[in-house]
Amino acid sequence: MSLKHITNYDPEMEKARGFNIEKMIGCVQVPLGLAGPLRLRSGQAVKDYQVPMATTEGALVASVNRGCKVIRESGGCEVVVKNIGATRGPVFKVRGIKQGDELIGWVKKNVRQIKKVAKASDKHLKLLKIKSQMIGRYVWLRMEYDTGEAMGMNMVTIATERVVELIKKELKIRCVSLSGNYCVDKKPSWLNMIEGRGKQVWAEVKVSEKIVGEVLKTSSEKIVEVVKAKQWLGSMVSGSMGFNAHYANVVAGVFLATGQDAAQVVEGSMGITTAEVDKNDLYFSVYLPSVMVGTVGGGTRLATQKEALGILGLSNKKGDAIKLAEVVGGAVLAGELSLTAALASGDLARAHMKFGRGE
Amino acid sequence: MSLKHITNYDPEMEKARGFNIEKMIGCVQVPLGLAGPLRLRSGQAVKDYQVPMATTEGALVASVNRGCKVIRESGGCEVVVKNIGATRGPVFKVRGIKQGDELIGWVKKNVRQIKKVAKASDKHLKLLKIKSQMIGRYVWLRMEYDTGEAMGMNMVTIATERVVELIKKELKIRCVSLSGNYCVDKKPSWLNMIEGRGKQVWAEVKVSEKIVGEVLKTSSEKIVEVVKAKQWLGSMVSGSMGFNAHYANVVAGVFLATGQDAAQVVEGSMGITTAEVDKNDLYFSVYLPSVMVGTVGGGTRLATQKEALGILGLSNKKGDAIKLAEVVGGAVLAGELSLTAALASGDLARAHMKFGRGE
Amino acid sequence: MSLKHITNYDPEMEKARGFNIEKMIGCVQVPLGLAGPLRLRSGQAVKDYQVPMATTEGALVASVNRGCKVIRESGGCEVVVKNIGATRGPVFKVRGIKQGDELIGWVKKNVRQIKKVAKASDKHLKLLKIKSQMIGRYVWLRMEYDTGEAMGMNMVTIATERVVELIKKELKIRCVSLSGNYCVDKKPSWLNMIEGRGKQVWAEVKVSEKIVGEVLKTSSEKIVEVVKAKQWLGSMVSGSMGFNAHYANVVAGVFLATGQDAAQVVEGSMGITTAEVDKNDLYFSVYLPSVMVGTVGGGTRLATQKEALGILGLSNKKGDAIKLAEVVGGAVLAGELSLTAALASGDLARAHMKFGRGE
Amino acid sequence: MSLKHITNYDPEMEKARGFNIEKMIGCVQVPLGLAGPLRLRSGQAVKDYQVPMATTEGALVASVNRGCKVIRESGGCEVVVKNIGATRGPVFKVRGIKQGDELIGWVKKNVRQIKKVAKASDKHLKLLKIKSQMIGRYVWLRMEYDTGEAMGMNMVTIATERVVELIKKELKIRCVSLSGNYCVDKKPSWLNMIEGRGKQVWAEVKVSEKIVGEVLKTSSEKIVEVVKAKQWLGSMVSGSMGFNAHYANVVAGVFLATGQDAAQVVEGSMGITTAEVDKNDLYFSVYLPSVMVGTVGGGTRLATQKEALGILGLSNKKGDAIKLAEVVGGAVLAGELSLTAALASGDLARAHMKFGRGE
Repeated sequence: MSLKHITNYDPEMEKARGFNIEKMIGCVQVPLGLAGPLRLRSGQAVKDYQVPMATTEGALVASVNRGCKVIRESGGCEVVVKNIGATRGPVFKVRGIKQGDELIGWVKKNVRQIKKVAKASDKHLKLLKIKSQMIGRYVWLRMEYDTGEAMGMNMVTIATERVVELIKKELKIRCVSLSGNYCVDKKPSWLNMIEGRGKQVWAEVKVSEKIVGEVLKTSSEKIVEVVKAKQWLGSMVSGSMGFNAHYANVVAGVFLATGQDAAQVVEGSMGITTAEVDKNDLYFSVYLPSVMVGTVGGGTRLATQKEALGILGLSNKKGDAIKLAEVVGGAVLAGELSLTAALASGDLARAHMKFGRGE
Repeated sequence: MSLKHITNYDPEMEKARGFNIEKMIGCVQVPLGLAGPLRLRSGQAVKDYQVPMATTEGALVASVNRGCKVIRESGGCEVVVKNIGATRGPVFKVRGIKQGDELIGWVKKNVRQIKKVAKASDKHLKLLKIKSQMIGRYVWLRMEYDTGEAMGMNMVTIATERVVELIKKELKIRCVSLSGNYCVDKKPSWLNMIEGRGKQVWAEVKVSEKIVGEVLKTSSEKIVEVVKAKQWLGSMVSGSMGFNAHYANVVAGVFLATGQDAAQVVEGSMGITTAEVDKNDLYFSVYLPSVMVGTVGGGTRLATQKEALGILGLSNKKGDAIKLAEVVGGAVLAGELSLTAALASGDLARAHMKFGRGE
Repeated sequence: MSLKHITNYDPEMEKARGFNIEKMIGCVQVPLGLAGPLRLRSGQAVKDYQVPMATTEGALVASVNRGCKVIRESGGCEVVVKNIGATRGPVFKVRGIKQGDELIGWVKKNVRQIKKVAKASDKHLKLLKIKSQMIGRYVWLRMEYDTGEAMGMNMVTIATERVVELIKKELKIRCVSLSGNYCVDKKPSWLNMIEGRGKQVWAEVKVSEKIVGEVLKTSSEKIVEVVKAKQWLGSMVSGSMGFNAHYANVVAGVFLATGQDAAQVVEGSMGITTAEVDKNDLYFSVYLPSVMVGTVGGGTRLATQKEALGILGLSNKKGDAIKLAEVVGGAVLAGELSLTAALASGDLARAHMKFGRGE
Repeated sequence: MSLKHITNYDPEMEKARGFNIEKMIGCVQVPLGLAGPLRLRSGQAVKDYQVPMATTEGALVASVNRGCKVIRESGGCEVVVKNIGATRGPVFKVRGIKQGDELIGWVKKNVRQIKKVAKASDKHLKLLKIKSQMIGRYVWLRMEYDTGEAMGMNMVTIATERVVELIKKELKIRCVSLSGNYCVDKKPSWLNMIEGRGKQVWAEVKVSEKIVGEVLKTSSEKIVEVVKAKQWLGSMVSGSMGFNAHYANVVAGVFLATGQDAAQVVEGSMGITTAEVDKNDLYFSVYLPSVMVGTVGGGTRLATQKEALGILGLSNKKGDAIKLAEVVGGAVLAGELSLTAALASGDLARAHMKFGRGE
């Protein structure tokens, strides 16, 4: 059959062949839009970003864009990012809980040697912390690594294999799987909600009653009630790990645009939204525990994705990965605020009819 | 700045402007590869598919392709799909638990009228079931709809608004939010794990000891031990809702290629893998409770995505959405089996070094 | 060694020997106190109860008693109870997902025969509903039974064994375990949170600003903030299934006093508290999804426990088990309101110093 | 009405009046049985215990007793206990994420001063570790304390209040609630599953094929399949935090007998069981992350409970609380093994008919 559209792609994308993908037959194209400017306050710095988002679902960019307007008119949003690091959690087989306890003790006593071994595998990487768990004859070690501007799963996997070899050599203990789901990569998990993974991101904004009314066409009280009834109680009665409205839409849009791993939208979209009325004004915040992003390597090497990162002014400069996490946090705040307000004012279905979608 | 790559896209993609996206500045391009043929057995039918996957992460297509080979040489994989339907879960505010109880009772008594009202909003849609919950002064209704070949969130949102209007008119009860996170859309949730959403998908394959050894370079015992130590116990100790290795990678690849909503990878990648040794042969299965897919509407209208669906022979024919869910299930089975085997044989890090990634 | 206290017990307790316990050496004695009167409104009925609670932890009875006073002065609390029924969830081994799907289909088609078989095992029992799940080669059936005034786990286990024998006879499918943790008995679970088990209980009270201030020594706003920061957000960040302060204390106290199964405090204490300010007054509610109680059989046969049930006016009369669930709900509401208020007014540590404990 | 049984109690129990309970009207009596001897191996020590259990549910003591026999004939079970400590997790209100971040930073920098302040409140207590979390305008601190032989919630609550006062004085930050459900006390939670609380307990036993057949009347293979289908997959499909059969029964029995807080059975019964076939022999293990026990204070002061502790040879000697946790772990192992074997051999319903109960 003819694949004239799939095969009609930017020649530069040929770079992907073999490295980013196998059996490549062309490219699928995803519409790219810009939301913003998004004004971020981080520490002392204030910066505006045009946020590139790739999506096939109408209303998303418009919704984030409306949120950015609210944030801008409110003097920007505050962002805090904590660099937890990429993690890999191998699982080992021991003879029993006594030997398992010894393994955990040995790791505690030999952290410096383990860090040296990890470092030797890649000078861009630094082992920060090791957490352990034991169940019956299985022991898990969760190693957290600073991977610079790279998302880093490849580096940490290789480094972890070195550590596994050390343990095998020193203690004659077998590793069952280099990844033991104690990482936890690309799965929703309470471990990542509680400990964080990659970048842990918080963002907040204070919006005046006037702006809530004029731009969001609703009231602080109504927004707070939606957060309570939907994001909190609604997620409680559903046993959901996502106490939010639609982080996934925004995270997916930015991840796709900037060459991040689309599968990491799963953990990247977990999180908790809060809202309160503050003397008729609105306080609104988001928390994302597990944002795995990088500005070098993987999909960021590709022509269109690299250009999208360029729109944000991000490349391989020190701190750029943190900045990308800040942008994700701010964009999620914008999108969450806008959709929550749409729900509060009863706009969702109308938005669906006007554009192609909503939540 | 120059955006020569982003702006160098297939003219047909212009269709997206305004409908699929706002403030469009071009397209991001995602490399597309083919894995397969994937041999599926569904009821009496046996069918081979070339599975299009869009990704920027090396090794994924190769890994799924290897899984397809194993499945093919094993006579294909069995797939079962149950159509649960798209859901929307509005939340209402009542005076107290007595009125809440009355609301739930009224809904039970008036299901036929409610179905008629929903139907009136869109003839392609059918309300199948209503589930309810109450906490204090809040009541949630979860409406499950058959939406034909469409993923359907737009249709069900509009239909649900009609039902909400009916309840407001008949009972004078206010809806706080048209979506009350009782849906549950784009968030991981036990409600969807337990009840299913969209399409509930099971897939399994029986692989001979010989094929496990020759193609997967490991043994049935080793694969079963990885599933036990990683997918099961590893996810238990991490409080994960994903008792699997990397459903998200495969689901994201197929969703992106075929124009599905990338944010629905979150719920679409939840699920449970099983494996057992059956007289030295391997039994391997996957379960995906919440696969939201469609072959019409949304991103499926776009040129490259429509072509990718064409490679699967899917368009707007009755049953095509179910077939797409079957392909997702089979591809996930292939990818899960291949990565689990790589972990069992200690290949993961090597794969990482050879290609750009793994899990 | 001398066991003069353990062996110094009420002669009537000898009844327990062999039936309630094996290798009996005497009795442990648990102090019994009375809280109340607790005023309950259920449908049209209004009734006052003196609530017996057995505990070794100071401040608990006093705290529930204070809550009862608030409820009384507020005209009583509203209670709604839904009888879900006792459940048993056996797990079966099938050849694969095709046969599993057939099993589930067969059960749907033969519900009437299955109900007859269950009924035949015990005339006091009625099979209400069957829910199913499948993962790989395993199928679970969750059978919900009305067991009258008995908690009923023995009856439903025996009845379920009959159903299992029928399936074995008709379909030649083997049951791996008569209880497959799909019940879910004595473990916290989202299945019970979502579906309910035993009795599903809601209770609420509206308290005037005046009473909140005079009796609870705090304000509605402060109580609402504690519920938000502790019961809701605090439990979200902890990955807790209990969005409450201390249901377990009250449920354990009443269960111990009335001869319920102490292990069922686990599921019986799951639940969600809500609070809102209603024109300066306080709206406060509790939800308990899974209260397994009975007024006949098991520990209710014992002399001291039977007397405690007598204090509530409950025995084997039709509806008494529902009434006991109402009392549990009301007592939990009282205790939850009192402790939340103590936290809001900064009393907890003082309570700890004065009595022996708090939460 | 006459309360001749409730009021017919051991005179010594009068001690409870006012301290352990308010509005005391007498005692409820719970039958006490002995299971054992239970042979425990901890480090180099080997010790036999007669385990007192208080219950009203037939078959429990018999079942644990059978497990003790299997353990004894297998040379005893291995136990490992890690003392995490009692925890209290207050929640604070900050102006925003910037101040929240500062609070967390201040705590990190001033740990030594904080430890001193905590110590000053009670010389028997030692602050070990502080963990933090932030969501919007709320910050939680989880303080882990060594409380010697006491369960310790009273001590840690008072000590935590001192720390709260210090933070208020130094940073002018308000504490919303002294307990912010980040503790997490008496609620099931992933935080405790992952971090542990009180005592973290592991126990395991290796049972020969011969003993499995002769005493447990089944095979290692069958027991392993029940653990897989029920404790693991069954709990996965139910969204349960308890990957076990009935820890709650055993924990409740020992807690009631020895004067522990019955409400802490909730967290104390969470945990994960494993089983594997080891050359036809059986390896079986249990993990309990959150066992809150003490041998002094609270209910351990009471005559019958103190005598039950005496049967175990435990009082206020250094290490006795750890020993009690070891006994809980060993007894849970015995009960879990026995019930799992009963299910594997199809005995459950028969046990129900013979005695009064089972799971």
